[in-house]
Amino acid sequence: MTRGFSDEEFRERVARAQARMDKAGLGALLLTTEADVRYFTGYLTRFWESPCRAWYLIVPASSDPIAVIPSIGAALMRATWINDVRTWPAPDPLDDGVSRLAEALREVGGPVGLPSHQGTVARMPLADLEAVKAQSGLTFTDDRGIVAGLRAIKSEAEIAKIARACAIAGRAFGRVGEIAMPGVPLSRVFRDFQRLLLEEGADWVPYLAGGAGPEGYADVISPASEAPLVVGDVLMLDTGAVWDGYFCDYDRNFAIGHATDIQCAAHARLVEATQAGLEAARPGVRACDVWRAMADVVGTGEDAGRLGHGLGMQLTEGLSLTAEDQTTLLPGMVITLEPGIETIGGKIMVHEENIVITEGAPRALSPLATVDLPTI
Amino acid sequence: MTRGFSDEEFRERVARAQARMDKAGLGALLLTTEADVRYFTGYLTRFWESPCRAWYLIVPASSDPIAVIPSIGAALMRATWINDVRTWPAPDPLDDGVSRLAEALREVGGPVGLPSHQGTVARMPLADLEAVKAQSGLTFTDDRGIVAGLRAIKSEAEIAKIARACAIAGRAFGRVGEIAMPGVPLSRVFRDFQRLLLEEGADWVPYLAGGAGPEGYADVISPASEAPLVVGDVLMLDTGAVWDGYFCDYDRNFAIGHATDIQCAAHARLVEATQAGLEAARPGVRACDVWRAMADVVGTGEDAGRLGHGLGMQLTEGLSLTAEDQTTLLPGMVITLEPGIETIGGKIMVHEENIVITEGAPRALSPLATVDLPTI
Repeated sequence: MTRGFSDEEFRERVARAQARMDKAGLGALLLTTEADVRYFTGYLTRFWESPCRAWYLIVPASSDPIAVIPSIGAALMRATWINDVRTWPAPDPLDDGVSRLAEALREVGGPVGLPSHQGTVARMPLADLEAVKAQSGLTFTDDRGIVAGLRAIKSEAEIAKIARACAIAGRAFGRVGEIAMPGVPLSRVFRDFQRLLLEEGADWVPYLAGGAGPEGYADVISPASEAPLVVGDVLMLDTGAVWDGYFCDYDRNFAIGHATDIQCAAHARLVEATQAGLEAARPGVRACDVWRAMADVVGTGEDAGRLGHGLGMQLTEGLSLTAEDQTTLLPGMVITLEPGIETIGGKIMVHEENIVITEGAPRALSPLATVDLPTI
Repeated sequence: MTRGFSDEEFRERVARAQARMDKAGLGALLLTTEADVRYFTGYLTRFWESPCRAWYLIVPASSDPIAVIPSIGAALMRATWINDVRTWPAPDPLDDGVSRLAEALREVGGPVGLPSHQGTVARMPLADLEAVKAQSGLTFTDDRGIVAGLRAIKSEAEIAKIARACAIAGRAFGRVGEIAMPGVPLSRVFRDFQRLLLEEGADWVPYLAGGAGPEGYADVISPASEAPLVVGDVLMLDTGAVWDGYFCDYDRNFAIGHATDIQCAAHARLVEATQAGLEAARPGVRACDVWRAMADVVGTGEDAGRLGHGLGMQLTEGLSLTAEDQTTLLPGMVITLEPGIETIGGKIMVHEENIVITEGAPRALSPLATVDLPTI
């Protein structure tokens, strides 16, 4: 599978954005985050891990995007389809790209759509944002959800990358028996599972969570403890592994030594809930409807939170499968189905799969788990 | 080595912040980023990879911090020393923590110091920030650099964690000969080097960059290509590996098969520049003085950028070794020395070490490279 996308795909993304900008009366989009900049440029680097440098992309109403970036990124940005690359020697304590950015925005004209709604962040210092507003003299507003809306509908090429990340994780999950056994500390399992993901082809592993305990785990966000696995534990590993800039995000549960009745019943219920989600996830249906289908199987604890979310260039993006989210599912959306269930007081089990919405039944991107809880 | 910090250390951090807030006339700090929240709480989770959820910490002028966070994080936050944990079921499309946060801020009182200066980001939707400002009725201003200033001076416990991350990377660098040889694609070297870091004890590997080529590499931020290593290449790997939430950030160069004269001369010059940086890096000296000491050895190309930076809970944080940065070095600061040099037209080599400023000569945290370019 080739990395990256064709220039044509990027041009189509820009054209679609510009059509929506026209309707919304926006003169420019100002993008500041890794995923938003990459979506329109193909600019892929782990250098975003350095929080001291700001990167800007302007999408004008009717011409090609303009990158305004630290000079250290110029060569890599010029290797993309973007031709207009303007740089400054960052970090500059007196003017860290502010005047370059304001000048470019003035050329393009406003109003400037800067993603400001839920799920977005302006990845730039607030003081610099105020200065850019003042120097450009333009009106700034939310991007009206244009970028998130476009990104929510994946192209076939994007879906293929997510599917590849899912397949990599599937092979790694298939090897958990090599690394997880009674006596091995959970922290070591975490380290070794990341190693397996790399061996199976992940470019990197931005996210790994999990837990282990007799009848489940207390939460799904804690770092791994040094406590060793014990016969009778259920172990859960939940990974966001990346291939060519696209995430998978799903988990698997394993019984250590032997599975208890409670574990087996919970796992079966979780798989049943996922099946209900698969049945419900049709185009035209709302996110809250899919949530309802799964919640009817696992119950709706007060803190149950969401039972799935959008997935793509970020571990989580876009819609949430909650009672409140009215987003309509459309073909090309990639989402997770992530039901959770309380097993005994204070303990939970969680199961997760990744699917893509199609015109008909959704297509599974992760290798769907069967009802039987695997024992290792 | 134990993970985490004593409650006493967190209390001292808060007391120091409150002393500075008093001088600056701030009624509260509002913190939104992983590192800033963790600095005062010890709250450590990879769940921040999910960009859809906002997390807030308020440091009042004279009482203990208040966490205002998604309910999914409540159990883990309550396991820290923080007692006042207020939650909401995120993501809530109608009110994603805004009214909870505004209410807490009103209780505490302003002015509210929100880090807004260079090197900072407000990790929350801009629309929510505006709503919190309006609902709280308080004045918002920059935090006057208080949090960055505190974080720049590491405690002995923090330095020990960075040293451990450096030692882990040192052992992995010592094994590069196992994974890098003629014919192996650079992408595979990247994957395998991350595996080595995990095997040697890294919790995870948020950052890996590098390059390879006959007399250097074109840049230090591109993703790995599929091009195989060739005899005569110089290979550079630059990693930000994490142990217990603290980064190392340094690189090593390797000659593949045999080293050329140009490579050897460049490497020797880079190590010489690092030595000059080590000589210069004394308390009371400015960042620009250390930059000058290294630039005098390697030259100051227009795009040379910075020759080092602060390091800690983030891959890069705080000061920059540039001509413009007037920051005064103080004992406890951990910085990188990162000289680069042009070898032939369009090709560079870069070398990096990690050190901590002391009352006397700086202490190396990475195992300092010798002049000889290692051949593998």
